[in-house]
Formats: sequence, structure tokens, C-alpha cells
Amino acid sequence: MGKFSHPKILEILERYKDIASLESLKSLAEWDLETYMPENAAEERGKILGRIDVLTQKLFLDPQFKKLVQEEYPDLNIYEKAVLRILRREIKILEKLPPEFIEEFKKTTTEASVVWRKAKQENNFDSFAPYLQKIIDLVRKEADYLGFEDHPYSALIDLYEEGWTVSDFENFFESIKNELKELLNKIKSSSKYTQKIPLEEEKYEKEKMQQLNEYVLKLLNFDEKRLRIDISAHPFETAISLNDVRITTWYHPQDFRRSLSAVIHEFGHALYELNSDPEFSLTPLQGGVSYGVHESQSRFWENIIGRNPAFLNKIYPRAKELLPFLEKYSFDDFVFYFNFIRPDFIRVEADELTYHFHIILRFEIEKKFLEGNLNPHQARDLWQAKMKEYLEIEPPNDTLGILQDIHWSLGYLGYFPTYSLGTFLSAIWKEAIEKDLGKIEDVLKEADGILKIQNWLKEKIHQHGKTYQPKELIKLVSGKEFNPNVFIDYLKTKYERIYF
Amino acid sequence: MGKFSHPKILEILERYKDIASLESLKSLAEWDLETYMPENAAEERGKILGRIDVLTQKLFLDPQFKKLVQEEYPDLNIYEKAVLRILRREIKILEKLPPEFIEEFKKTTTEASVVWRKAKQENNFDSFAPYLQKIIDLVRKEADYLGFEDHPYSALIDLYEEGWTVSDFENFFESIKNELKELLNKIKSSSKYTQKIPLEEEKYEKEKMQQLNEYVLKLLNFDEKRLRIDISAHPFETAISLNDVRITTWYHPQDFRRSLSAVIHEFGHALYELNSDPEFSLTPLQGGVSYGVHESQSRFWENIIGRNPAFLNKIYPRAKELLPFLEKYSFDDFVFYFNFIRPDFIRVEADELTYHFHIILRFEIEKKFLEGNLNPHQARDLWQAKMKEYLEIEPPNDTLGILQDIHWSLGYLGYFPTYSLGTFLSAIWKEAIEKDLGKIEDVLKEADGILKIQNWLKEKIHQHGKTYQPKELIKLVSGKEFNPNVFIDYLKTKYERIYF
Repeated sequence: MGKFSHPKILEILERYKDIASLESLKSLAEWDLETYMPENAAEERGKILGRIDVLTQKLFLDPQFKKLVQEEYPDLNIYEKAVLRILRREIKILEKLPPEFIEEFKKTTTEASVVWRKAKQENNFDSFAPYLQKIIDLVRKEADYLGFEDHPYSALIDLYEEGWTVSDFENFFESIKNELKELLNKIKSSSKYTQKIPLEEEKYEKEKMQQLNEYVLKLLNFDEKRLRIDISAHPFETAISLNDVRITTWYHPQDFRRSLSAVIHEFGHALYELNSDPEFSLTPLQGGVSYGVHESQSRFWENIIGRNPAFLNKIYPRAKELLPFLEKYSFDDFVFYFNFIRPDFIRVEADELTYHFHIILRFEIEKKFLEGNLNPHQARDLWQAKMKEYLEIEPPNDTLGILQDIHWSLGYLGYFPTYSLGTFLSAIWKEAIEKDLGKIEDVLKEADGILKIQNWLKEKIHQHGKTYQPKELIKLVSGKEFNPNVFIDYLKTKYERIYF
Repeated sequence: MGKFSHPKILEILERYKDIASLESLKSLAEWDLETYMPENAAEERGKILGRIDVLTQKLFLDPQFKKLVQEEYPDLNIYEKAVLRILRREIKILEKLPPEFIEEFKKTTTEASVVWRKAKQENNFDSFAPYLQKIIDLVRKEADYLGFEDHPYSALIDLYEEGWTVSDFENFFESIKNELKELLNKIKSSSKYTQKIPLEEEKYEKEKMQQLNEYVLKLLNFDEKRLRIDISAHPFETAISLNDVRITTWYHPQDFRRSLSAVIHEFGHALYELNSDPEFSLTPLQGGVSYGVHESQSRFWENIIGRNPAFLNKIYPRAKELLPFLEKYSFDDFVFYFNFIRPDFIRVEADELTYHFHIILRFEIEKKFLEGNLNPHQARDLWQAKMKEYLEIEPPNDTLGILQDIHWSLGYLGYFPTYSLGTFLSAIWKEAIEKDLGKIEDVLKEADGILKIQNWLKEKIHQHGKTYQPKELIKLVSGKEFNPNVFIDYLKTKYERIYF
């Protein structure tokens, strides 16, 4: 007996396959845009994706489909109820946006992402600034269309994390800012803090690093028949269908952790998608339930697993074969290279503590964008000032500053705060896993330790797809409401041990 | 003043952008299927593409769109008239096919193409045979839906070459069969015929061969901002949009001509697409007008240019650097390696003469498939028998026999005969070019000779996209009706000089 049996739900799912098919090809086209698409195709690709977004909207708002979705049916099971919950929310959002706006938004952001890539390569903020201004104007319009109670930014945040508002995130960030600052200051007082960071200046061969990444993916039980890895200007993960998930990484001439951590992070996203119940393929329930929960998976693998000495011990022998410079360092150096705290310019490579200042900075800038109080060049100045304020460093150029992330070029404003939320959530999963399986460090020492953890995540979180709302899921898995202190405690315990 | 100004045509073109967008993403998904898609995604991809085909049909048959297209408008220019001609034909075809059939067809063929790829790799015809049977059943149904006067095969042939029927191709093949057979027998009597073919057993390094292919593409004025090259099990070209055209090739351990000729052939297709008038982007006029004319471009570059000693002379120095075994051979050997006649197993690598027997064989088998007179295993036996009859050789296995081509797995029955048509057409273009620019051999000796030929093709053929119907175009460019003798004369003159 399948998960879906109500005849009306089956009818809805049958019609939904058209939408799922469009979404799948859209994801493919977006993956392609960042990986293999010839440069001059950007403008056409933007037009095409704009049209596809409008077609998708038409299918959602088709009167017959809408009626089917909005009717009440008795005796639905949780999966069938979830189908209606997700589709109703989607329809509620899409009803508010005029098709011309949807088309314009996609056209502009597709082109802007190509301009951004070049601007970042060439450290040329001026070339990107006019596109950023267009995008600010577009997201302000979007917020007006969507409507909001307190602040236009809330309208966007809700798209990424249902039910969260500007004040929710302000409270969240307010509650952690001081704790993080205190811990940072404490660490700065440690004699170990001034020590030179090992390994980060060592240069690697790209081919060898690719081999190491592949080795680590195998260790993580990578299924190459369902997942592939490519290279892009900014690492990302995308699910084209349940059996077609793709991640990317990058290769720099040195500092191999950048490439490896991106692989592990994106793999965490991919695993969430790959482990959806197969019955959810091409239904609204397929895949991760929210951006925050998604990020909790990637950050769990990147940080809780990827920085753990027991995990690093598993990859160390192969790493030594492929990266000959490791001979000059001890295993302790290797572990420290993955676990030091030091303010730096790039968010995706930040340590577990200072990472959140990168997010707070973006959150504050985005809020001002939405208020109409900041133009791109002012944002650039504010970026520099906030980096100084929070981390006491100033990016020497825009490639290491405001141009580093792809998100704004794609119009993804409201996305960044979910990164902190997800990171905090990852500590909650850790706590729940340790209750069931014992200390992560010990589990990782077992031969099938990684698989055990993956099975736990699959059973408790991944397989459900979008069945449970984020808050419901957190309670179901951890037995408690979301509580930022779990992560703060994890951080304190871990880094006080490392630094003192 | 643009090419399109009539308000109703502008309205049609505006609506058509939805269709063009779907077609573009479909092409991307098909390219991806043959290049990068993870293996297990085949079934989902088939379902998705089936849905997209049905959505496309819905847009074409939308009552408002159909009415706009089918009305008569006075005072249209040739471009506007062509828009209506193309859309009316498309609607006429799609009206006849039930959506369930379209979906089933795409689902089956997408999966079958993945099964075929594996079957070919493993020389396992039995694993592909049930899929081939399904496809035969589907195309027979398709012919019934489409309708035909003389023979069901005509219904399919018309999809690839408008206005051509089984009897047209029977007459065409009848008229050339004896001429080709006579020429082949004559060549076989030459003392040069028994000579060992140079170079074909020499092994190359894949990376070096890739460099040579890239060098040749540069020589052909390859624009890497609009065109990319990848690897696939069967070389092909696809246009995703006017500024996004992609080709593939293959790499075998030896016989470098296989890889290089595929590149030049597919480049010929790509050039036709890339040179469409930019105003045609996302309109029905974009791209090649028929399969035959398309093939006339690829075969022109592969054979008329790619086998020409003056062209081979341009690539010889670089080839010697990258393929060290060339040191053991003379330039004459190098030229002969590209210009010998010898019956062999693989169509895409066949010489200019025996190539057409490969097509005739497929044409005769497809005809029987459509009659319901042949199952896959009988077809396999017939393949072997016909190879013996026409070329006096028998494939030692199915990978070199009935499994060699991707077409049947994709349901492309009726496509093959256009390959011969296109090849014969390429000699007509050669004649027309030589009238305007002088002997191809001499033009190629000039520094900008390739560009001159490309500009001629662009002006006379490529830029027009689908503006003129194939027969119209042939007359416009050559001043004459299609005449198979032009190619036969070219072949006789060329190979009698080589062999006697």
C-alpha cells in the first residue's frame, strides 16, 4: 500500500508531474549555467528561464488545479495532508506575483549571475553594481507584492524559512552575538591563538586534489549512479530529480581545505535529497523541507563530521599520499588546520565561530536594501565597515569582500540567515544522534560508523522529505523546541578544549 | 526595421517564446542524457521529458494560438510567411498524436537510449531487443496516427524531410545503387586497392588527440563563447539556443580519424545553427530547415573540406607534434588515410562511397519494421545478410553491427535516408561554391580560405534559418533542382584519380 491513495490526491499528484517536470529542467538549466553553458548564451538562457517560471506559475494557478488543491478532504494521511499544505503555500505565494514580474526577475538574475561571475574574477565591483541595483529594486517590489506585517524583509525571509520574520532573526542574532564575541575574545587571549596556522599556504596539484575529493566521497558512501561532482565559481548542490543530484566544488592553487570542505558541505545537502522516500519522486514532498533544515545537513557534515579528528584520521593516510607536503606536518597540525578560529574574509571558509558574523553582516545589509536605505556602493562601504566592527579585519579587495557570494546576483535575498539557523540546528541533530548512538567521535571510530550516522539521518530526517514542517520536525527528532544554546554550548566546549 | 512587423505575427512570436523555451530546455536535457546525467536518473528523465513533450503539444494546440496561426493575413513578408508555414505544419502533425502517445513515446525512448548505450558497450543485443520491439510498435502506431497514402514509412520520413516519401527514396537509391556498385567494383580492381591502409592501427593518447581536435576547431574559427565540445557514446550536435550550440566526439584507443572526423562533421551541423540570423533567436525560423539540409552541412565539412589535401595540409604540422607515430608516414599516407575506399562495419566512419550502402541497408530494414514484417532478431539477421550482399563483409559482433547507431533507441525511424540525401546535396553546394569562389582546393590554400567558404555558406544558406523550404533553397542557391548526378560525378572524378 503506497503513501498516497485518496483519489483526489492522486489526481493532484498526476497533474503536479507537469510542474515537477518543469522544476527539474529548470534545475538542470541552472546547474548548466554555473558549470558548462557557453558564455554568450546568458541572455537567451535568462529569457528562457523567465518564460519557464511563468509557465510554472500558470500551472500552479490553473483554476481546476487550484480548486482541487484548495478543497477540504476528510480522512487524509500525513503525506496527503502535506501535499495540500505545500501546494497551498506555493499557490498563495504565486498568486501575488504578476507574471511579468516573475519573467523580469528571472531574466535579470540569470544575466546578473553571469556578470557577477566575471566581476568576481576581475575584482570589478563597478561592473556588477548596476545589476545589484536592479535586483534590489526587484526584491523590494517582490516584498510589496508578497505583503508583510512588520518589515518588507520578512516577506522574503518567509520564502526561505516559513514562519520566520526579521524580528525572529534579530532576536536570534541578538541572543548569540555577545556569546560569540565573548568566546572569540577569550580565544584571542590564548597563547595558541597567535600560533601560525599550519598547511594553509601549501600548494596542491589539482588532479591530486580531485582524487582526494573522490576518495572522501567514497568514504561518505557516494553513489555515483545518482550523484555527480563538477567544478563551478561558487560550490553548490542541486537536485534535478530524486536519482539525479549534483554538487560542485572549486580548486585554488593552495589551502586544500577550501576544496575538500566544499565537497563535504555540498555532499551533506545532496544526501538529504538522495534519501527522500522513493515514492516522493516527482511529488511536492520530494527533497529538503526548508533552507534552514537543508543547511543543517550540509553544516553537520562540513563541521560536526568533517572537522572531527576521528573523521580526519580516516582520510589522513590517503591525503598524505596525494598531498606530499603533509609529510612536513604532524597529524595534530592536520587536525588543527581544520579546527582553528581566526577572523577571515570568506564566509564559506570561515571557522565555526566567526562564520555567524559573516551572516549577521549580510543580514543587516539585506535589511537596509529592503528598506531602500542603501545603494550598492554604500553597501560596499558598509561591508568593509562591518567586517572591521565584527571581525577587526578589512577585505583588501571586493573579490574577498562584497563580490564573494553568488546569492545577491540570483536575487536570493533572505537566504543567508538560514545558514546560521541551519548551523545551530546541526548541533541539535548532533545531540540527538549522540543520545541514540553514543559520542560521534566514538561512532566515527567504528568501521561502519559513517553509515550508522547516515542511516540515522535518513530514518529521522531525510526520508520524510517535506512531510513535516521544520518546527514539527525539530520537535519530532529532538523532543524539544529550537534552542540556540545547544550550538553555543557545543562551540564553547569544543574550542575551549582546543585553545586552553 | 526588423524582419517581423505585422502585429499578428508579433503576437504569435511572443506566444511562441513559451514553446521555444520548452524546446530549448528539452534539448539541454537530451544533451545531458548523453553526456553527464547520472545513470540511475534515466527512468525519471524519461517521465519528465514525456511530460514536457505533452506540455509543448498543449501550447501548440492552444485554441487561441492555433486560431492566430491558421488565419490568413495579407501583405506578409517572406519571414512572416515562413513563420506561419512552419507553425501550421507543426500543428498539423501534433493534432494527430494523442498526448498519451507522445508521453509514452518519449518515456520509452529515453529509457531505451540508456539501455542501448550499455547494450552496445557490452555487445548484448538481447538486452536491447525488447526495447527495440516496443519502439517498432510505437512508430507503427505513430504512422497510423499521422496517416499516409502509400506506405506507413512515408509518414515518418515526412517528419524528417518534408514532402519526401518511401517511393522518392526508393527511386533515389535505385538510381544510385548501380553507379556506386560499379565504381566500387572498378576501385576493387585497382592495384592500389589491396594496399595496406596506413595509420589506422596507430594508438594515440587521448589528451593529445583532444588538443588536436581543439586545434582543428580553432582552425575552423570555432567560437568558444557560443559552442562547446564534450564526449559521448555516439557523436552528435545539438542547438540549445542560438548562442548555445554543443557538439560531442569520441575517443578510441586507435585510428585517430574516427575522433577527428566526428568533430569536423558535428562542427558542420553547429555552424549551420550558429549562423542563423540573430533576429531568429527563440522564433520558429531559428536553425536548420530540414534533416537533409542539416546533413548536407555536416557532410560538406566532413568530406568536401575534411578530406581535402589542402585542408589536411593545414593540420598536418600540428598533428605531427601531437601524434608522434606520424613521423613514420609520409604526407601522402596521411592524405590517403582520409581518402581510401574500403567496405567496413561502421557507418559514421565509412568512406564516401560505401557510406550509402549503410544507409540503404537501414532504409530497407526500417521499411520492413514499419510493415510489421520484421522483429528485432530477424532484423539482426537481415543486417548481417545485407552487409554481405552490399559490402561483402559480415560484422563479427553486434557492437560493430546492428547496435552501432543510437537512432532506433530514440525512435528516430525515417532519419537515416536524409543522411544520403544530405551527402548528395553537399556536392551541389560544392559546385555552387566553386562557381563563385573557384576550386575548393585552391580556396583552402588561401590564408582566409576557410573563412571565405564559411561566409559563403552563411550568406547563401545558414543565415536564412528555416525561411525557405528545402527544395526552394536548393533552387535558390544552385539555380537547379536536386540532381543526384552531381555527387556521383564528384565521386567518380575524385576516386578514379586516386585509384588509377
